[in-house]
Amino acid sequence: DFMHALQNDVKSAFGSSKEQIDELLINGILSWGEPVKRVLEDGDLVVAQAKSSDRTPLVSMLLEGTPGAGKTALAAKIARLADFPFTKLCSPSNMIGFTESAKCQAIKKIFDDAYKSPLSCIIIDDIERLLDYVPIGPRFSNLVLQALLVLLKKPPPLGRKLLVIGTTSRKDVLMEMEMLSAFNTVVHVSSISTSEQLITILDSSDVFTKADIDKLQRKTAGKRIFIGIKKLLVIVEMARQMDEDHRAAKFQMILEDEGALDM
Amino acid sequence: DFMHALQNDVKSAFGSSKEQIDELLINGILSWGEPVKRVLEDGDLVVAQAKSSDRTPLVSMLLEGTPGAGKTALAAKIARLADFPFTKLCSPSNMIGFTESAKCQAIKKIFDDAYKSPLSCIIIDDIERLLDYVPIGPRFSNLVLQALLVLLKKPPPLGRKLLVIGTTSRKDVLMEMEMLSAFNTVVHVSSISTSEQLITILDSSDVFTKADIDKLQRKTAGKRIFIGIKKLLVIVEMARQMDEDHRAAKFQMILEDEGALDM
Amino acid sequence: DFMHALQNDVKSAFGSSKEQIDELLINGILSWGEPVKRVLEDGDLVVAQAKSSDRTPLVSMLLEGTPGAGKTALAAKIARLADFPFTKLCSPSNMIGFTESAKCQAIKKIFDDAYKSPLSCIIIDDIERLLDYVPIGPRFSNLVLQALLVLLKKPPPLGRKLLVIGTTSRKDVLMEMEMLSAFNTVVHVSSISTSEQLITILDSSDVFTKADIDKLQRKTAGKRIFIGIKKLLVIVEMARQMDEDHRAAKFQMILEDEGALDM
Amino acid sequence: DFMHALQNDVKSAFGSSKEQIDELLINGILSWGEPVKRVLEDGDLVVAQAKSSDRTPLVSMLLEGTPGAGKTALAAKIARLADFPFTKLCSPSNMIGFTESAKCQAIKKIFDDAYKSPLSCIIIDDIERLLDYVPIGPRFSNLVLQALLVLLKKPPPLGRKLLVIGTTSRKDVLMEMEMLSAFNTVVHVSSISTSEQLITILDSSDVFTKADIDKLQRKTAGKRIFIGIKKLLVIVEMARQMDEDHRAAKFQMILEDEGALDM
Amino acid sequence: DFMHALQNDVKSAFGSSKEQIDELLINGILSWGEPVKRVLEDGDLVVAQAKSSDRTPLVSMLLEGTPGAGKTALAAKIARLADFPFTKLCSPSNMIGFTESAKCQAIKKIFDDAYKSPLSCIIIDDIERLLDYVPIGPRFSNLVLQALLVLLKKPPPLGRKLLVIGTTSRKDVLMEMEMLSAFNTVVHVSSISTSEQLITILDSSDVFTKADIDKLQRKTAGKRIFIGIKKLLVIVEMARQMDEDHRAAKFQMILEDEGALDM
Amino acid sequence: DFMHALQNDVKSAFGSSKEQIDELLINGILSWGEPVKRVLEDGDLVVAQAKSSDRTPLVSMLLEGTPGAGKTALAAKIARLADFPFTKLCSPSNMIGFTESAKCQAIKKIFDDAYKSPLSCIIIDDIERLLDYVPIGPRFSNLVLQALLVLLKKPPPLGRKLLVIGTTSRKDVLMEMEMLSAFNTVVHVSSISTSEQLITILDSSDVFTKADIDKLQRKTAGKRIFIGIKKLLVIVEMARQMDEDHRAAKFQMILEDEGALDM
Ligand SMILES: Nc1ncnc2c1ncn2[C@@H]1O[C@H](COP(=O)(O)OP(=O)(O)OP(=O)(O)O)[C@@H](O)[C@H]1O
Ligand SMILES: Nc1ncnc2c1ncn2[C@@H]1O[C@H](COP(=O)(O)OP(=O)(O)OP(=O)(O)O)[C@@H](O)[C@H]1O
Ligand SMILES: Nc1ncnc2c1ncn2[C@@H]1O[C@H](COP(=O)(O)OP(=O)(O)OP(=O)(O)O)[C@@H](O)[C@H]1O
Ligand SMILES: Nc1ncnc2c1ncn2[C@@H]1O[C@H](COP(=O)(O)OP(=O)(O)OP(=O)(O)O)[C@@H](O)[C@H]1O
Ligand SMILES: Nc1ncnc2c1ncn2[C@@H]1O[C@H](COP(=O)(O)OP(=O)(O)OP(=O)(O)O)[C@@H](O)[C@H]1O
Ligand SMILES: Nc1ncnc2c1ncn2[C@@H]1O[C@H](COP(=O)(O)OP(=O)(O)OP(=O)(O)O)[C@@H](O)[C@H]1O
Ligand SMILES: [Mg+2]
Ligand SMILES: [Mg+2]
Ligand SMILES: [Mg+2]
Ligand SMILES: [Mg+2]
Ligand SMILES: [Mg+2]
Ligand SMILES: [Mg+2]
Repeated sequence: DFMHALQNDVKSAFGSSKEQIDELLINGILSWGEPVKRVLEDGDLVVAQAKSSDRTPLVSMLLEGTPGAGKTALAAKIARLADFPFTKLCSPSNMIGFTESAKCQAIKKIFDDAYKSPLSCIIIDDIERLLDYVPIGPRFSNLVLQALLVLLKKPPPLGRKLLVIGTTSRKDVLMEMEMLSAFNTVVHVSSISTSEQLITILDSSDVFTKADIDKLQRKTAGKRIFIGIKKLLVIVEMARQMDEDHRAAKFQMILEDEGALDM
Repeated sequence: DFMHALQNDVKSAFGSSKEQIDELLINGILSWGEPVKRVLEDGDLVVAQAKSSDRTPLVSMLLEGTPGAGKTALAAKIARLADFPFTKLCSPSNMIGFTESAKCQAIKKIFDDAYKSPLSCIIIDDIERLLDYVPIGPRFSNLVLQALLVLLKKPPPLGRKLLVIGTTSRKDVLMEMEMLSAFNTVVHVSSISTSEQLITILDSSDVFTKADIDKLQRKTAGKRIFIGIKKLLVIVEMARQMDEDHRAAKFQMILEDEGALDM
Repeated sequence: DFMHALQNDVKSAFGSSKEQIDELLINGILSWGEPVKRVLEDGDLVVAQAKSSDRTPLVSMLLEGTPGAGKTALAAKIARLADFPFTKLCSPSNMIGFTESAKCQAIKKIFDDAYKSPLSCIIIDDIERLLDYVPIGPRFSNLVLQALLVLLKKPPPLGRKLLVIGTTSRKDVLMEMEMLSAFNTVVHVSSISTSEQLITILDSSDVFTKADIDKLQRKTAGKRIFIGIKKLLVIVEMARQMDEDHRAAKFQMILEDEGALDM
Repeated sequence: DFMHALQNDVKSAFGSSKEQIDELLINGILSWGEPVKRVLEDGDLVVAQAKSSDRTPLVSMLLEGTPGAGKTALAAKIARLADFPFTKLCSPSNMIGFTESAKCQAIKKIFDDAYKSPLSCIIIDDIERLLDYVPIGPRFSNLVLQALLVLLKKPPPLGRKLLVIGTTSRKDVLMEMEMLSAFNTVVHVSSISTSEQLITILDSSDVFTKADIDKLQRKTAGKRIFIGIKKLLVIVEMARQMDEDHRAAKFQMILEDEGALDM
Repeated sequence: DFMHALQNDVKSAFGSSKEQIDELLINGILSWGEPVKRVLEDGDLVVAQAKSSDRTPLVSMLLEGTPGAGKTALAAKIARLADFPFTKLCSPSNMIGFTESAKCQAIKKIFDDAYKSPLSCIIIDDIERLLDYVPIGPRFSNLVLQALLVLLKKPPPLGRKLLVIGTTSRKDVLMEMEMLSAFNTVVHVSSISTSEQLITILDSSDVFTKADIDKLQRKTAGKRIFIGIKKLLVIVEMARQMDEDHRAAKFQMILEDEGALDM
Repeated sequence: DFMHALQNDVKSAFGSSKEQIDELLINGILSWGEPVKRVLEDGDLVVAQAKSSDRTPLVSMLLEGTPGAGKTALAAKIARLADFPFTKLCSPSNMIGFTESAKCQAIKKIFDDAYKSPLSCIIIDDIERLLDYVPIGPRFSNLVLQALLVLLKKPPPLGRKLLVIGTTSRKDVLMEMEMLSAFNTVVHVSSISTSEQLITILDSSDVFTKADIDKLQRKTAGKRIFIGIKKLLVIVEMARQMDEDHRAAKFQMILEDEGALDM
């Protein structure tokens, strides 16, 4: 029944998240350019501070960027590289249909669990979704917002250290909610924006022939490109379904339809 | 009593939907023109991707068009052609009078059931109605909206594949709610817009004489027509009640009254 | 006690409505002119379609007009003439003080009962009141609205046929709520607008002398009249209380005070 | 305890109201002028119609006027003169702190009780207060509003007759809520507006000397006066506390302070 | 526990208020000028009317003025001088954290208790706080507002007399809520506005030397002063903490900082 | 389970706060300039008044300043220096996820406990967070607001004395809510605004070499600086993670990125 299902959800919400975090990385992190490198370096720095500084037992970083830019995967990557004794994913997909107060309870439980370990990392994924945000109104859960605002400011107990990594596509909204300044650092996750970056990614897939890639390179060279890695990977998979003769042409057409390519 | 009735509703909401999907197709799919063909082709493509791609275990498609354009029937057709082991209809008509949270629970249950099958298809019909949307305000269920936003983004467990087909007549509203971009593909379902298309449909019915159809063809040739297949079939049935002598004339008059025909 | 009273209300809401529908017709239907005839003809047509068409197992008609135009009585008349095995009145007067969800439950029960009979007719009376509509705000029950929107679209089970007759004085509001298009046909119920129509009705009452009626005919001939049959019958009864000498004069004065007569 | 107190309130709300109606008349009805006479005549007329007409088993009248104009006392007077077997006061002072639904229940109970008697009269006093109306917002109980709208339209069972007398100081608000047109007749209750009317009332009190009254008559002759009978009677009582020498002067001063007298 | 604490609050809310009223007078009433005298005289008058008039068994007075003007203390003074058999304080400080309906219940209980005594006095202190009023929105408890509006209009049972003294700093808001006119009399409580009044008060304290007072008199003579007695007494106490040499200068500085003194 | 966790939270919320207050001071109070001294002096004054004045048994002070200015630490410092028998921290971090009424209850309990001690001090930290304030809307808990407004005005029982120290970064909002004037004194907590103040703080850390500090002094001399002590200390810790060669340069760069330094 429902209560039973709920309890299972709640239990799984409180267990270890290592597996769930690994699933977020199943498609890997492609090194398509400088921006990717920089985010990972910033991640290294906050991980180091979280590990070593006694005066800042709570360190927090927000990854922000357009939908599909790769925020969640990069947060997962940083957390896995840090490899802290306690690592936990706080994600809306574990809280579907929760009431506001059940969400608060689940979030608070994650932090309380983290406080018990000497060195912990919490990923707060998709903050606008955790807040039940919708631009019409706008509406959102103030209860969850207030809980997050307080938790992002409250240091762990003496001797414990905590790193919080948040992700969002609505930097503007979090600013209005006075949550942006609650993070120690805000890091931008870029979309793919040059032909070189695009070709790097296509090269690494097994979908296009060398000739196709050369053709796409000539067509896109110097053009304005704007697409997140997540959407791009979906379109590559769509192209894979098509017959090889028209694949490159159709791939280019879909990019244009999506407004990702200015021809 | 009420709880009993509710439980029955809930149970039927969780059982197999094959029969219910067949009922949606009881009036058949008429091939009245190119637009119909294109939607079915797009359907084939996403079905193929859902079946074969490992990197995109979740594939989603939204059918949008004016009220009565045939969205639900086409979604049912695509799902029946795909013939996946698990096929489920998520429809407001199974959730009349449900509270927001009962709706969430029912929707979540459908997805949880789908996650248990290796290859599943879910039709989310009439999304604006699932959301209890009304333009005055506007008002809608944010709880249901947030659940759908998360479910449309959450991949099934490792090794499972899921195709989601949504339908809506309020593309604009779904865009504002940031749900449009949650679908991988958005496909337009057209209304009938030419005299040829109209006559194709009348021909296939047994309501009008050859002479009537010729007359209607002459009268509508080159005129601007705009009517969904669903409404058109209702009007044809109305015409059937009338005596044969005035049938064609009255049929034309109703079309004009409905604003479907510019004379 | 209250629960007991509630249960009685609920029970009576679910029993047969034939008696209640007859009560709506206690003052009869006067044939005061062409508009009355036309509404009854339109009624005949939908009744025929509901009885015979297999492709449209759900037929729906909305009677709309100003307050007191006679909508409810005409809906009752059409339903009684149809004489279907199951006929049911869904009226706000059976749901006073119901919560939104109790209303939904009651309405859903009426439809579920109808689905059990091969041929059914439901009158949904005074839709704006069922929706708890008030223009300040505006406010209304979205739960009831959504239930009606879904029920007006959901065909009965295979082999069952259903005719729904709605009434409303707020066509504009129902349009905004996207409920107008949920009905197959919308029929206007007219107010009395000519001196001839007025005199026809006065003639049929036993309140005025022949001389009075002649005088009123002369006074109103060619004047703009605008009054619903329901209000007119109340004013005729008021006149009945007055002494015969001033009756006609006072009757005319009340009509003018009510803004029903432009002198 | 509270539940106990509530039950007592509820019980007293359902018992006979004759005593409570008499209390409303404890200060009597002064015949200060033509307007008073006219309201009582209109009352006679609706009482007659309620008693005798079979075609209008439900007759309703609304008394409207500024605060303190005497609406409640006049409604009580009309009801007492009618002397129907069942007479009931539906007043906010019997429902303090009731929830919206408790109010609905109490109001519905009053009507249900009335339906059991062949000839009944219900006073619905201070409708804006029954509706919990406040101009800020505005806010009001839609549940109570909808209940009243339906009850004002629903005829009593066959063979029963019902007279409803409502009172309000917010005719404008009731109009906006579409409640004004739910009453068969709307009657205006006037404030005191001439020196003659004022002096008639002062004469009937034992507070002022003949000389004082003469003086006040000279001072107010031809002046614009605007004060409800209720407030006027309070000010007369205030004057009674003052020493006789300054009484008339102070009385005049208070009238001016209250804006009741334009000097 | 909480319920227990609540019950104690409720009990104390229903017991006698004499002690609590005396506490409000612990700092006494200083006769700093004409305005104080006038309020006390107006108080005498309503007390007399409440005691003696049979035609106005309910007498009500509202004391309004800026925050800290001395409204509560003056209401307490009037009530203590009246010395009625039943005197009760209805104050927000007895209802902290109460729900709207618990507040209603508590207020109603106070009136019900008063109705049992032949001659009663109720102080309704800080009405805007009882109403949970906040200018943002604005928001307030309509349930409490409606209860007060009805109670201020409902006469006590036959043979009982009741005096109600209200206090507020938001006359404007009470006017908008149509509560101002529910009181029989509205009396203004003034702030201190002249040098003479200020010096009278300083004289009566033991904080300043004769020389200091002379100096302050010279400095403030003819200046615009605007400060409530409550705030002034706090500042005098602050001055008491400072060393005698700078006391007068610092006192003057604080007055200026507070905007109470225009130099 | 949750109830258990809640009870622990509640219990810890009601125990002694000395330890929690000491934790707020773990990074100490640096004497970086005149503004720090002045706040501590103002603190001394109110502590003295709270201890000694009989006429003002309730003394309250609000510390307001931009986020991270050091308000909470200074409030803790003042409370620890006062060393009253009862000292209590009322902080949002002890009430995460509480309902509005649970918050009210917790706050009321703190005051009720304080009333039992002859001399008490309560820190109400981060008032905008206690109120669940968010600028979108704006939204906030009116229940908590009203409780605080009443508690800030209600004197402790006879013979008891209470000092309340509040902190906020939203002076503007508290003003709009009419809470600002509920405090006896409002004291501004400044951010660091001159090169001298900045260098004083860097000097006291062990992060930069003498040479680095000299360089930073030359670079910032005479420049506009604006940063709270809390943020500054976090950035100093970040700098500590970097290699010594670029530390000063990177530190300066971060200050500029944060908008804390106008170059
Ligand atoms: N360099 C990269 N950075 C991030 N993700 C990458 C990279 N290379 C490949 N990926 C893959 O791209 C996908 C990025 O999806 P992800 O869910 O992280 O995006 P997102 O920005 O969180 O999306 P959303 O806005 O919907 O939450 C993942 O499948 C990830 O494995
Ligand atoms: N080519 C076609 N495409 C779609 N529907 C068709 C076609 N030919 C016939 N039909 C019939 O037309 C009707 C279309 O109704 P359907 O409910 O699918 O429309 P809809 O767009 O979902 O309407 P609504 O906007 O009300 O949800 C169905 O009865 C279907 O059997
Ligand atoms: N030709 C007619 N059409 C309709 N009603 C008629 C006619 N002749 C007489 N009547 C009587 O007039 C009255 C019409 O009232 P009815 O309640 O049907 O109006 P309505 O439009 O539903 O009013 P409302 O807007 O208040 O719901 C009934 O008593 C009916 O018996
Ligand atoms: N001619 C009169 N008409 C009405 N009331 C009168 C008249 N003469 C004397 N009175 C007295 O005046 C008072 C009128 O008060 P009443 O409560 O009826 O006014 P109201 O208009 O209902 O006030 P409110 O707007 O506050 O409800 C009663 O005490 C009544 O006895
Ligand atoms: N003449 C006076 N009038 C009123 N209060 C006086 C007077 N002289 C001294 N006081 C003292 O001044 C204080 C007035 O405070 P009080 O609480 O009555 O003000 P208030 O207007 O009710 O304040 P608030 O607006 O905060 O409710 C009391 O302590 C009272 O004893
Ligand atoms: N002179 C000082 N004043 C205040 N805090 C200081 C000072 N010197 C060092 N600190 C340290 O600076 C930090 C100030 O943080 P604190 O939480 O008090 O700021 P805040 O203004 O309350 O922040 P917020 O707006 O986020 O509530 C504390 O760690 C404190 O120990
Ligand atoms: Mg993401
Ligand atoms: Mg559909
Ligand atoms: Mg009707
Ligand atoms: Mg009245
Ligand atoms: Mg006060
Ligand atoms: Mg702080």
